[in-house]
Amino acid sequence: MRIALAGIGKIALDQHVPAISSSPDWALAATVSRHGGLEGVENFARIDQMLAARPDISVVSLCLPPVPRFAMAQAALRAGRHVMLEKPPGATLAEVHVLRDLARAQGVSLYATWHSREAQAVAAARAWLAGRVIHEGRITWREDVRVWHPGQDWIFEAGGMGVFDPGINALSILTHILPEPVHVTEAELDFPENRQAPIAARLALSGNIAADFDFRQQGPQTWDMEFVTDAGRLALRLGGNVLEIDGRPAGGAGTIMGEYPALYARMADLVRKGASDVDLAPMVLVADAFTRGRRNLVEKFEF
Amino acid sequence: MRIALAGIGKIALDQHVPAISSSPDWALAATVSRHGGLEGVENFARIDQMLAARPDISVVSLCLPPVPRFAMAQAALRAGRHVMLEKPPGATLAEVHVLRDLARAQGVSLYATWHSREAQAVAAARAWLAGRVIHEGRITWREDVRVWHPGQDWIFEAGGMGVFDPGINALSILTHILPEPVHVTEAELDFPENRQAPIAARLALSGNIAADFDFRQQGPQTWDMEFVTDAGRLALRLGGNVLEIDGRPAGGAGTIMGEYPALYARMADLVRKGASDVDLAPMVLVADAFTRGRRNLVEKFEF
Repeated sequence: MRIALAGIGKIALDQHVPAISSSPDWALAATVSRHGGLEGVENFARIDQMLAARPDISVVSLCLPPVPRFAMAQAALRAGRHVMLEKPPGATLAEVHVLRDLARAQGVSLYATWHSREAQAVAAARAWLAGRVIHEGRITWREDVRVWHPGQDWIFEAGGMGVFDPGINALSILTHILPEPVHVTEAELDFPENRQAPIAARLALSGNIAADFDFRQQGPQTWDMEFVTDAGRLALRLGGNVLEIDGRPAGGAGTIMGEYPALYARMADLVRKGASDVDLAPMVLVADAFTRGRRNLVEKFEF
Repeated sequence: MRIALAGIGKIALDQHVPAISSSPDWALAATVSRHGGLEGVENFARIDQMLAARPDISVVSLCLPPVPRFAMAQAALRAGRHVMLEKPPGATLAEVHVLRDLARAQGVSLYATWHSREAQAVAAARAWLAGRVIHEGRITWREDVRVWHPGQDWIFEAGGMGVFDPGINALSILTHILPEPVHVTEAELDFPENRQAPIAARLALSGNIAADFDFRQQGPQTWDMEFVTDAGRLALRLGGNVLEIDGRPAGGAGTIMGEYPALYARMADLVRKGASDVDLAPMVLVADAFTRGRRNLVEKFEF
């Protein structure tokens, strides 16, 4: 199937292009980018131009930042194309509701992806936790924004979500592996005085689960979650890629497909089945943290 | 049907008690309040005491602030009681999802009320707008928090929602009368330096709709919305109670039941039918405004 990729930035080059290239399902037929595309692939400055010129492209994958994503997704769906969305699926919940309803009305597939759910050990963690009683959970997601989002000012603008951009990856795993839904009971958000999105956040969730997100981590990076259950301790480390039970390595050598190849395989499957997959649970928790949270002002941040 | 009222504050005394007393459907059988209840009605300090002592009370109406409401709603639903929630139905979206799922599992009714939707001219406005093309809309909701929420510090605490406490009334009308769903495209929130919830907010919504919420309005109060359509101008004034078409009074003398009597009549109907009514659209717009919005610090506020 021919696919167009819109938003040729870091995540597109690091993940989407290699995943599409290595897939038996997809041919990268066009890009949409104002700043130039890829060698050997037709590029359009605007999505409406691509949609008009290339009726042979049935699927559009959008990996630009959340704020400008909605208009492009709406245009693609209105033109009868299937749409795949990077996470978070939008800057607001209501706009994703609009896209979901539009996809349904158009009879096309919409896939709100959560790449971290495809990390190597997530399925094994989910299977292990099923039916277990969880007494306590702790998420620690601390990374260096200068390393992972160098110079990406949009991430600290209103709607850019700040530290929730990586934090929502943790929440996407959490909402996938827990046997019961959770909700935010308290939140504290640290906003740099010169920015409109938080650089750190601490959440308390129902079921005695705590989350600590920080974008200022230098040196070793941490993407861990640990649970104390009635049957022992589970730890999921390295962003869902390593599983430990009671401190010993377990499972882990599950899917080696890679996160983005797995997303593109799933998208191919959704299109073939005429189905959609739009799970907003991780994004609801983020919106709830913004609504419910205390705000602290912290020192200025510059890249 | 016997009903218990939990949270005996200003809104309970001003609205809920008179609405229940004047209804043919309901008998106020108990209150739950740490600060004392009502003359001649059995009061309990804690909801679990009431639920244990009064199995004859099948319905619980919760009108305490959003943050403490969840635990009480959960307790009442777990005890197999029907539950009615003041607006907003919770401090977070995810907690209302939990309540909704719990009500379904328990086979009881859950009603997330939006009293402003029952204002006198709302149904007429909705009927008039159906099938019309709306070019532009403007909401102005400006009231004096010292008059309407005297000394209620909870409203400016994290999760209290600040000016969205009245603003969500406007949004509940908006999402009810518009033929199409809307989403927040931009937002600006003014936080007093000594408070955790905004005192004013300006939203841009899809479909060229703007909203201006302000808690600092002294003198004349404004709760208006105006729409320019392909068939003329509609204005809904006084919080949904007065309708004007092209500047002339129209309809308006519709339901004179009153907002809260209408809510209690609807609750009786839901219980009789074994149905629930949980529409989160107004609250999604608020959560989106918090997530998407720019924050300004403004001068301190004291009651």
